[in-house]
Amino acid sequence: MNPAFLNEAINQAKISLGQGGIPIGAVITYKGKIIGKGHNQRIQKGSVILHGEMDAFENAGREYAPVFKDCELYTTLSPCHMCTGTILLYGIKKVYIGENQTFKGAEELLASHGVEFEVLNNEECISLMKKFIEEKPNLWNEDIGN
Amino acid sequence: MNPAFLNEAINQAKISLGQGGIPIGAVITYKGKIIGKGHNQRIQKGSVILHGEMDAFENAGREYAPVFKDCELYTTLSPCHMCTGTILLYGIKKVYIGENQTFKGAEELLASHGVEFEVLNNEECISLMKKFIEEKPNLWNEDIGN
Repeated sequence: MNPAFLNEAINQAKISLGQGGIPIGAVITYKGKIIGKGHNQRIQKGSVILHGEMDAFENAGREYAPVFKDCELYTTLSPCHMCTGTILLYGIKKVYIGENQTFKGAEELLASHGVEFEVLNNEECISLMKKFIEEKPNLWNEDIGN
Repeated sequence: MNPAFLNEAINQAKISLGQGGIPIGAVITYKGKIIGKGHNQRIQKGSVILHGEMDAFENAGREYAPVFKDCELYTTLSPCHMCTGTILLYGIKKVYIGENQTFKGAEELLASHGVEFEVLNNEECISLMKKFIEEKPNLWNEDIGN
């Protein structure tokens, strides 16, 4: 676990929050370097698919698609089924999860496919989401398909 | 199964092919009407996440996010883990799959979550993909994370 990469994921979450968006961010790393970073774009782009992780994949782009299986992913929040499915599609080998207390995604699906993951219980990730869910429950429910 | 909806998914696949793209298309329907349609955008938009199904979700947009759980999805090809994860996230209730002979996606994952699906073995879907995979195997492998 490289704290600088988690910090950049948190930074992405804060950028989103500052834009009036959902505070979830992610980065993808390859050989110790960030190759893609992003954040939830539901508000900013009116997107129903650009969760933080998806935005990071999209920003990494086709250039890196052939090496995604040698990449690691840092996300501020436990990945939902969509993001987990994308992790499986591209064979990401390790996932660092900022927290899974405010939302527990499809971690069992990751595990059943042999994807290593580590839940970091990061206090900043938790407080960002707690505050957001409290303030905008409808938006949050929309984002997780409730 | 409404053949007009499958035909529109096939039409989307052909539009993509005509643009030099990957011939996979999808539509999402709500109360007997198409609310989102799309096709693979890997070539057209340089996207690593816009599979046909994802593009259809994105084109349906936030307006319909709250009712995705009452929607059906038609896709020309068996959905991969990413697209299956998105189907699970939004609780799509039924999926019509044009074919699963050239690629079998995460159908077991759909089944394990109680999502109904029907594989149609449509000849046009099969021949579109067979020809494409034969002509552009590298592009196809990139699209499915191989």
